[in-house]
Amino acid sequence: MTVDCEASGRLRSSGLLTDLYELTMMQGYRHFGKDDPVVFDVFFRSQPFQGGYSVFAGLEDVLSLLSNLSFDNGEIAWLSELGIFRNEFLKDLEGFKFQGDVYAMPEGSMVFPGEPIMRIHAPLAQAQLVETAILNTVNFQSLVATKAARIFNASRHGSILEMGMRRAQGFDGALSATRASHIGGASATSNTYAGKLFNIPVRGTMAHSWVMSFATEYEAFARYAELYPDSCIFLVDTYDTLRSGIENAIAVGATLVEGGHDFGIRLDSGDLYSLSVKCRKRLDEAGFPNAKIAVSNELDERVIHQLISDGAPIDLWGVGTHMVTGGDQASFPGVYKLSARTVRGRLEPVMKVSDTPEKSSNPGVKQVYRFYDNGDEPLADIICLEDDPPNPGEAIEFFHPTNDAQHFTMQNYGRFEPLLRRVMKNGTICTQLPSLPEIREHAVAELRQLDTTYKRIINPHIYKVSLSSSLKQLKSEMQERVR
Amino acid sequence: MTVDCEASGRLRSSGLLTDLYELTMMQGYRHFGKDDPVVFDVFFRSQPFQGGYSVFAGLEDVLSLLSNLSFDNGEIAWLSELGIFRNEFLKDLEGFKFQGDVYAMPEGSMVFPGEPIMRIHAPLAQAQLVETAILNTVNFQSLVATKAARIFNASRHGSILEMGMRRAQGFDGALSATRASHIGGASATSNTYAGKLFNIPVRGTMAHSWVMSFATEYEAFARYAELYPDSCIFLVDTYDTLRSGIENAIAVGATLVEGGHDFGIRLDSGDLYSLSVKCRKRLDEAGFPNAKIAVSNELDERVIHQLISDGAPIDLWGVGTHMVTGGDQASFPGVYKLSARTVRGRLEPVMKVSDTPEKSSNPGVKQVYRFYDNGDEPLADIICLEDDPPNPGEAIEFFHPTNDAQHFTMQNYGRFEPLLRRVMKNGTICTQLPSLPEIREHAVAELRQLDTTYKRIINPHIYKVSLSSSLKQLKSEMQERVR
Repeated sequence: MTVDCEASGRLRSSGLLTDLYELTMMQGYRHFGKDDPVVFDVFFRSQPFQGGYSVFAGLEDVLSLLSNLSFDNGEIAWLSELGIFRNEFLKDLEGFKFQGDVYAMPEGSMVFPGEPIMRIHAPLAQAQLVETAILNTVNFQSLVATKAARIFNASRHGSILEMGMRRAQGFDGALSATRASHIGGASATSNTYAGKLFNIPVRGTMAHSWVMSFATEYEAFARYAELYPDSCIFLVDTYDTLRSGIENAIAVGATLVEGGHDFGIRLDSGDLYSLSVKCRKRLDEAGFPNAKIAVSNELDERVIHQLISDGAPIDLWGVGTHMVTGGDQASFPGVYKLSARTVRGRLEPVMKVSDTPEKSSNPGVKQVYRFYDNGDEPLADIICLEDDPPNPGEAIEFFHPTNDAQHFTMQNYGRFEPLLRRVMKNGTICTQLPSLPEIREHAVAELRQLDTTYKRIINPHIYKVSLSSSLKQLKSEMQERVR
Repeated sequence: MTVDCEASGRLRSSGLLTDLYELTMMQGYRHFGKDDPVVFDVFFRSQPFQGGYSVFAGLEDVLSLLSNLSFDNGEIAWLSELGIFRNEFLKDLEGFKFQGDVYAMPEGSMVFPGEPIMRIHAPLAQAQLVETAILNTVNFQSLVATKAARIFNASRHGSILEMGMRRAQGFDGALSATRASHIGGASATSNTYAGKLFNIPVRGTMAHSWVMSFATEYEAFARYAELYPDSCIFLVDTYDTLRSGIENAIAVGATLVEGGHDFGIRLDSGDLYSLSVKCRKRLDEAGFPNAKIAVSNELDERVIHQLISDGAPIDLWGVGTHMVTGGDQASFPGVYKLSARTVRGRLEPVMKVSDTPEKSSNPGVKQVYRFYDNGDEPLADIICLEDDPPNPGEAIEFFHPTNDAQHFTMQNYGRFEPLLRRVMKNGTICTQLPSLPEIREHAVAELRQLDTTYKRIINPHIYKVSLSSSLKQLKSEMQERVR
């Protein structure tokens, strides 16, 4: 057996959940006495899906991991066999505990390129070790929460059932995806294990195999209705949707409605627009205006947007593959970069100057402020050095990311708020973390408050994020010094 | 904490790792006494990545799951609270054990659309339950093994380091991806946990943060060389690859070579072609023709193919995101369809006739035969009814999937072989499963033997797969009956 239960039991707390180079660098930092405090930023360089916003997810799992991270004896023995780690370092790992501070935006927040969404303050070796696990968790869950928010938005905040487990990337890929889909707007899941684990409502209809295992489609529907009168969504496309499926659904549905129950149908193939229109017509004619129409089959935000624009009479959306994997973009481009290190006892800004210009990072210990209008609508964000925050009421200069000629002054705003808050102190969670429903509520509220131009599926307006004047100046001075 | 160790420990053997509807249908089958033996096929409808072949992976994990599948008391209590399951059914689940037979192609085999790659023979309720977990495992690992094979092939069977953990879809997504990447051709991984779990070689270089944490790039390289003289790959793009990185690497590398060690450099940004050419030139001029050049940065088969065609002097490929997620195609389109059910004590063929024609399935208990030339090169596959195999030496009719006018007769072949073999009997693995190195060897050998026209990255030749005459006839008769 490749993965036994014991092995899986270590899956979310093992110090080996990291790239090998984090461990070799960690040994190097300790060996050369370079284990002073540093700051790493988690940020991303461009919006996934060519979209206008992303949803930050995965924080709770990251904090859980950091709290529990350790190396067991078998793991240390295995590292020893690799022949690249010295005994003194392996001895150190035996008592390893993450002792850093973590600052983060609230989980479920709308986030934009270049903004630090988390900041890790820890001794260099510890901060280096946790890079891979943090990125794995935040990148994947933010990818899926963002995709789910796009889908939820396209459905005009409709009913979305996440049903992607069979196409998800591993079991844990499926579980994390269910959690993140729920944050982004899915209301229920087909994933039973995830339902239990996260307390998310579980739902399901029937499969083609149910229909095929009976002598007739009518019998398959009738038996299902007998057993589950309260949740009948008949899958009508096993043989012929219009000539057989919808008629059998109406025949069996009639007895359900007589008994005081509702029913619905699910379309899983063919042209979903024309089939939904024709089925709606048949259901209405037959006297069942309350019968619901659910659809599935490779749905994503584009397909849903088009169906809704065309006026397809669809009530429920079953979304799988594209939501739980990201579809045509399967990864979130989050990175983890050193932004400050200790020099002569003080944190000094550092930055990476890359041959690929957009890979250059922002130096220093930073905070992000979000500016709102007089209500709750966000207008723009500013990234500034933590020790140089904006002053209430003052006019703020906003710069274009690459074109210095383009800038504007923000004067008429209601309020601004810092987005990064300390959530872990010395390796211990130091705040009351929100529940999953609260995280979802926060995400949905942020999505609702964002101006509609940023939420377009294609060619969205670009939400303004600027470096503060002092941070911009520090960055150009440091770039100049390297040149 | 959302996922604790105990919960993760159940991750690979819980009966709840399934879509809810599998459980509701399962209860229905048992309730209506419809629990006779059936056959389900696992197959896929089209090649991922618009490619010419796929690599089947995940079998060992599926068999491990099926062997251990169970419901614990907490899970049964939770199901009970949903209010949709009856006591007699929940009681049944307490002693649940999967008791089916499984037929499968060898893991690592080249597979083609429409072919059953696994066949599950079990009582209907059991066979239904395991659908989601089987698909989750086979779809994801086959996706990644196929992508890895494409990348390995593009590199002309070069050295590939899988380093995708930070962009993988969850921890388990990362672990399964490392296993599947290795099957498809990656020679090593950066994923330390996966290295221990699967006994795959672990490798790594250094991060930008290592370079940035020292006062100078030279010092960062020199310290690294001091600690790891046997495996120095200097990351040269933190400040300026040509003006600073390569020169510092040569300076420190010179002392390594004096001491009898090799060294190399890694390029992670900029134009990889022109930087690799210029760095190769500098290394050669400086007297280090053996110094290796490694590259990374969003590599996939297309980028690698282009770099190699252009003659870029690259020795090692670090591939992450695209290999472990599939990149622009993040899911493998495998499905699980009923192909036979018991009628009056005998297995009778069934099929799904869909409104989307390519969603119609092939009826009956089937076997796949692969025809070879007089060596080991595969020529074409035939899908036939198990009780009507081809006869050695006879001419075989091959049909076009949709155009009846197009067909050909295969006469000159060397041999043919059945691909599906029984691997599980009555819920117990009944064969010696190959080790991971053996699976990888099988995959690489199959890839090597396949004619090069099927392996083109763009517009590959389509490998011929046909239904046998009798299966084709059965399918059209059954389709006709539905109409």
